[in-house]
Amino acid sequence: MPVNLAPPKPEDLLPVRGIALGVAEAGVRKAERKDLLVMRLAEGASVAGVFTQNRFCAAPVLICKENLALGRPVRALLVNTGNANAGTGEDGLARARRTCTELAQLLACDGSQILPFSTGVIMEPLPADRIVAALPRALADCREDNWIGAATAIMTTDTVPKACSRRLSLGGKSVTVTGIAKGAGMIHPDMATMLGFVATDAAVSPAVLQHMLVGAAARSFNRITVDGDTSTNDSFMLIATGAAGTPTISGEHHPDYAVLAGAVADVAVWLAQAIIRDGEGATKFITVQVEGGKSEEECARVAYAIAHSPLVKTAFFASDPNLGRLLCAIGYAGIPDLDVGRVQLHLGDVLVARDGGRNPAYREEDGQRVMQQSDITVRVELGRGKAETTVWTCDLSHDYVSINADYRS
Amino acid sequence: MPVNLAPPKPEDLLPVRGIALGVAEAGVRKAERKDLLVMRLAEGASVAGVFTQNRFCAAPVLICKENLALGRPVRALLVNTGNANAGTGEDGLARARRTCTELAQLLACDGSQILPFSTGVIMEPLPADRIVAALPRALADCREDNWIGAATAIMTTDTVPKACSRRLSLGGKSVTVTGIAKGAGMIHPDMATMLGFVATDAAVSPAVLQHMLVGAAARSFNRITVDGDTSTNDSFMLIATGAAGTPTISGEHHPDYAVLAGAVADVAVWLAQAIIRDGEGATKFITVQVEGGKSEEECARVAYAIAHSPLVKTAFFASDPNLGRLLCAIGYAGIPDLDVGRVQLHLGDVLVARDGGRNPAYREEDGQRVMQQSDITVRVELGRGKAETTVWTCDLSHDYVSINADYRS
Repeated sequence: MPVNLAPPKPEDLLPVRGIALGVAEAGVRKAERKDLLVMRLAEGASVAGVFTQNRFCAAPVLICKENLALGRPVRALLVNTGNANAGTGEDGLARARRTCTELAQLLACDGSQILPFSTGVIMEPLPADRIVAALPRALADCREDNWIGAATAIMTTDTVPKACSRRLSLGGKSVTVTGIAKGAGMIHPDMATMLGFVATDAAVSPAVLQHMLVGAAARSFNRITVDGDTSTNDSFMLIATGAAGTPTISGEHHPDYAVLAGAVADVAVWLAQAIIRDGEGATKFITVQVEGGKSEEECARVAYAIAHSPLVKTAFFASDPNLGRLLCAIGYAGIPDLDVGRVQLHLGDVLVARDGGRNPAYREEDGQRVMQQSDITVRVELGRGKAETTVWTCDLSHDYVSINADYRS
Repeated sequence: MPVNLAPPKPEDLLPVRGIALGVAEAGVRKAERKDLLVMRLAEGASVAGVFTQNRFCAAPVLICKENLALGRPVRALLVNTGNANAGTGEDGLARARRTCTELAQLLACDGSQILPFSTGVIMEPLPADRIVAALPRALADCREDNWIGAATAIMTTDTVPKACSRRLSLGGKSVTVTGIAKGAGMIHPDMATMLGFVATDAAVSPAVLQHMLVGAAARSFNRITVDGDTSTNDSFMLIATGAAGTPTISGEHHPDYAVLAGAVADVAVWLAQAIIRDGEGATKFITVQVEGGKSEEECARVAYAIAHSPLVKTAFFASDPNLGRLLCAIGYAGIPDLDVGRVQLHLGDVLVARDGGRNPAYREEDGQRVMQQSDITVRVELGRGKAETTVWTCDLSHDYVSINADYRS
């Protein structure tokens, strides 16, 4: 059960002119499951991407980077679940390339104009034959109002599809931003086992689109963690079709840039939070705000020390205000000159610790009241500077262990 | 149930001349539980210590460091469970000092000659009154053949006492090394919620004893992890009473240094491994060997990436050879120029991956066979150099979540 996250209503997902989405059952890992997605792009679309930093990155990630570097117009994105095609060496690259080439033939373009994405089990051979066989059915299914189908097809251990839309006005013209994402475990900064696709029908030049994407990722997908594992396959893509007919945003100082970038970041943050709300076994959604640091980087270190601590996460699961575990995590976050006497710790609206220890006015029943909520904010004031950052995570429950102990069975 | 670890037989624990151990029920947290330990040292004993790097380190850790820095002869160590006296600010320091002063009065020495240690719940006031009231009973219980009582008294979530002895000969005289340790969660390098006390009746000068201790810690307590949380209270102490009448080891090149240091490290490694074998919820004992690195530090980064990964640890719990998770952890360990094509991954005697992916000869049934064992070795060859290191960890089970969700109840 995701934490305060309802499945999207199909009617709330706005089509993006210039993008058609089709899904099919390829039987990659399990039968009778829509596990293949094709996103066809209209001519003239710009595509930007950021990818996992994992050295064992998957074959499709390598090919995406290669193809984007070639700079040829991207005609389609091809996504499969059930198999990550990671840790598969040269053979994995060949299989991924073959799926691209076959789709390119059906679309009368070159294989380098296809971007492949995979998610699922690592180190098993991709069943390229079954994917290729399903491509015609996915193409036949392509339509602009199929974002809900796309969001559903990319799910793995997700329990609800994740998708949202924003409408905005650029120069008097209506523009849409719609995004989908998947990923519920192996979620960590520098991306996650996470695929995110956000699209707009505004027109943005490729370099500016990349800048907009990096900014959105820093505030969203790079600020979440379920279990600290940075996956082999994380990819976050931003597509601008230009089909809305608005003027091309060709620089960061273009008057429309901030408006569109804000909407894109808004969608990305919503999707990133949805991934955490649907984190494997999650029963609590935890916002960790760290303020008063000397740099955003040291704030992030403290936030992640809290967000990664299994002891903190099991305490949240138990609704147990065992808040010393939070102080402990702050203490080992790796700020060697931290003056613990200046640290303040808030749980929701309750001041838990100050002056190097427990706030004398803190009462366990106040902590207990906050711990029982399903959305909880931890706020740490470091008392060293003006930098701040926010990270989102979830608790660690029995179901996390069950899901990950049974994932392949 | 600890993994392949039987409780020590009392008769296997050799007394160390010059150290008497007494325990008592102080009711720190729970009634009818031996939760207080006093270790009395004969005059002339040397004491060395290493402590947690956590900035929110506990009051007793601060006082231990202060008292050791004063350099006066240590007359006793005082240990309580049930309360960590951490995150307790000035009040916590005052309470810890009071227990030292009261014990010092009973021993006719100064409070600075007592070293205090606490383990248990963080951020709750230490019940100093109850500890002080129990001191006479602990002193009355003091005797040299009470290591098993001491090992039992310092347990928290441990399921078995951890203690072992070695006998060796220095210059024809028999010398004993006996150690005890506790700690089953919040276990991480740079120490753990872990208390370790190792003692010998050999004679070692203080500076040399500290050197010996640091060397032993680097190979033992600083190479284990249960959950990646570095606690506020970790302390590892080495005591040399000199009561065996052997010549004082006054330099690292003294002929007896290597012999004694080897036995001390042997005891420390045994205790550190015992902590992991009794790790919270552990069902598997995992040895992670990383070889072929450019430095020991980068080998440790890879080893800890594996040992900390909840996905890897749940796979071990499930005996599921989902070994892509191991490659994934190697990939995100933070070696930016790692050539994955040179990495080899062994699970036990099975070569799982090479050339950037799955070993073509690898069969899932071989991986399965190793995964079903309770003692498993993961060996990673990085193919970059000659450095190596070994880390020990355990799996992540349902019981880990249960223990830590219920710990305070």
